[in-house]
Amino acid sequence: MVELQPRQLDAVFHALADPTRRAMMKRLAAEPRSVGELAAPYAMSLAAASKHVKALERAGLVRRQVKGRTHLCRLDPQPLEGANAWLSFYRRLWTDSFDALDALLKAEDGKPAP
Amino acid sequence: MVELQPRQLDAVFHALADPTRRAMMKRLAAEPRSVGELAAPYAMSLAAASKHVKALERAGLVRRQVKGRTHLCRLDPQPLEGANAWLSFYRRLWTDSFDALDALLKAEDGKPAP
Repeated sequence: MVELQPRQLDAVFHALADPTRRAMMKRLAAEPRSVGELAAPYAMSLAAASKHVKALERAGLVRRQVKGRTHLCRLDPQPLEGANAWLSFYRRLWTDSFDALDALLKAEDGKPAP
Repeated sequence: MVELQPRQLDAVFHALADPTRRAMMKRLAAEPRSVGELAAPYAMSLAAASKHVKALERAGLVRRQVKGRTHLCRLDPQPLEGANAWLSFYRRLWTDSFDALDALLKAEDGKPAP
């Protein structure tokens, strides 16, 4: 299991906290794209798109390959495994709270209607 | 599986992008605590601690119960399941990239030393 350092975890969660960056990641999951292609679906300047790509790069989620004048962006999903590892500590808690709710609903079902 | 709305997902990932807030969550996972108790381990004012608690509340990760002059904070782990559901789309990608690396390393092992 990949364990991220606190500062990497900050950068990963910060990168994920924006809908445009999450949408960019989803498109990059299909295939690598240039910054221009990533900016295209949005009413957004190339500079603004580049700022989002930089936040993804700082988190290690995107690798940029410079080919002449084109910056090709590739998704690196590995840091997400670190985020997943961090979340896994809490998995038992949310599973338990669902089980408790389930037990409560089943107990309610067994009772006669008031 | 819990699916969060984009704005909720923004708030959850934003809340997780700070080491103090993650540490507060870890302490709340053990037991509910007042804002004062949450602030105690840090060189931090009550106002600064309260700001962090508010970010956790906006994400639905903390519920605050007012008992007289004490604000008791409880962890609600449910929104983390939404974050986990979002991550699950990428799980295949990071597993595949590990498998590819594993295959590469095994192939390297099979080669004679240069």
